[in-house]
Amino acid sequence: MKLCDIGNTNATFYENGKITRVKIENFSTDSNQPVYFISVNDSLKERLKNAKNFIDLEPYFELDTIYQGIGIDRIAACYGIKDGVVVDAGSAITVDIMANSIHLGGYILPGIAATLKAFEEISPRLKVVLNSQIELEAFPQKTADAVSYGIIKPIITLISAIAYDKSVYLTGGDGEFLARFFKNGICDKTLVFRSMQRLINEKGLHK
Amino acid sequence: MKLCDIGNTNATFYENGKITRVKIENFSTDSNQPVYFISVNDSLKERLKNAKNFIDLEPYFELDTIYQGIGIDRIAACYGIKDGVVVDAGSAITVDIMANSIHLGGYILPGIAATLKAFEEISPRLKVVLNSQIELEAFPQKTADAVSYGIIKPIITLISAIAYDKSVYLTGGDGEFLARFFKNGICDKTLVFRSMQRLINEKGLHK
Repeated sequence: MKLCDIGNTNATFYENGKITRVKIENFSTDSNQPVYFISVNDSLKERLKNAKNFIDLEPYFELDTIYQGIGIDRIAACYGIKDGVVVDAGSAITVDIMANSIHLGGYILPGIAATLKAFEEISPRLKVVLNSQIELEAFPQKTADAVSYGIIKPIITLISAIAYDKSVYLTGGDGEFLARFFKNGICDKTLVFRSMQRLINEKGLHK
Repeated sequence: MKLCDIGNTNATFYENGKITRVKIENFSTDSNQPVYFISVNDSLKERLKNAKNFIDLEPYFELDTIYQGIGIDRIAACYGIKDGVVVDAGSAITVDIMANSIHLGGYILPGIAATLKAFEEISPRLKVVLNSQIELEAFPQKTADAVSYGIIKPIITLISAIAYDKSVYLTGGDGEFLARFFKNGICDKTLVFRSMQRLINEKGLHK
């Protein structure tokens, strides 16, 4: 079975336990086998309405929430999480809070690459390589560290405060990198795909 | 006496208690009176080396710090602050920690406008108007709030944690807006200029 999670920059495929990624501009709408997908990319989603073999799972997902207009990627990531904080760290970083299988709300941060780019555009002096080994418990003493701290520390501080002693489930391109900063962080690159798989089984959607 | 704080986007002038601002591209290097300035803008600073009547105050400022390459705008903002957190919220947001007149370090965040732009570039869905009345103690329940919370909450949370019960001195274009979120926030749009004025008096630089 082939699954696909379509974002703003990339589409990620999952098949036989393997993850592959293609850029949106290289996405092919031809497939000779069923592809179960979700998409936050409106234009590609529109094109896929007429594409043979592409099955949109969005109508089947359900999430107990009062959040208006939550993206299907976040719904899928939260699906099946009873308690904890769900973090999808990609182009943007979405943070969603689940308690007793109810979605309590969530917020969005720019992704790490987007923030580095924002710094670069503010001033050439702020164009730095991220110091991934940055010490978050000491005040930075040079620009590269001040910028790296300014990117990573807010992400970690906010999520830790919200999670408290509950688990933090991380997925997305930067999920693995961020997971190391949490004592109760669980990195799961297949979080969304396992939700899609479970939904297909539960709803008997498999062709 | 005319003072000038030159940034990456704007140059801010201070004269007779009045603040005026010009875009860098409209900056005139002609002046028939002395202009005491500091500049983080390298190219404009270079041009001013040969400009008559422009006096660079950078060589006269001193700050007790081990921070490497701290911008002169941050040095000037911290100058004369004994204890507290100094926040300059402009194109970038610099945060510096002073204790017993010693600079303990600092970090940098992208400014509010830069972060909104970063969101917009990630996805058209994330192009929102900042909700300046955002409730920071409740989880957001719609995209505009999720983005606004994602911009404001990290700024406030980090600074509050560092400041604890000490004062937070805010300056820069967004200083007034951010000040309202701190119980011990002091907005001072003339912070840098008062430092420059004091330096000129202390060092007897006035022509």
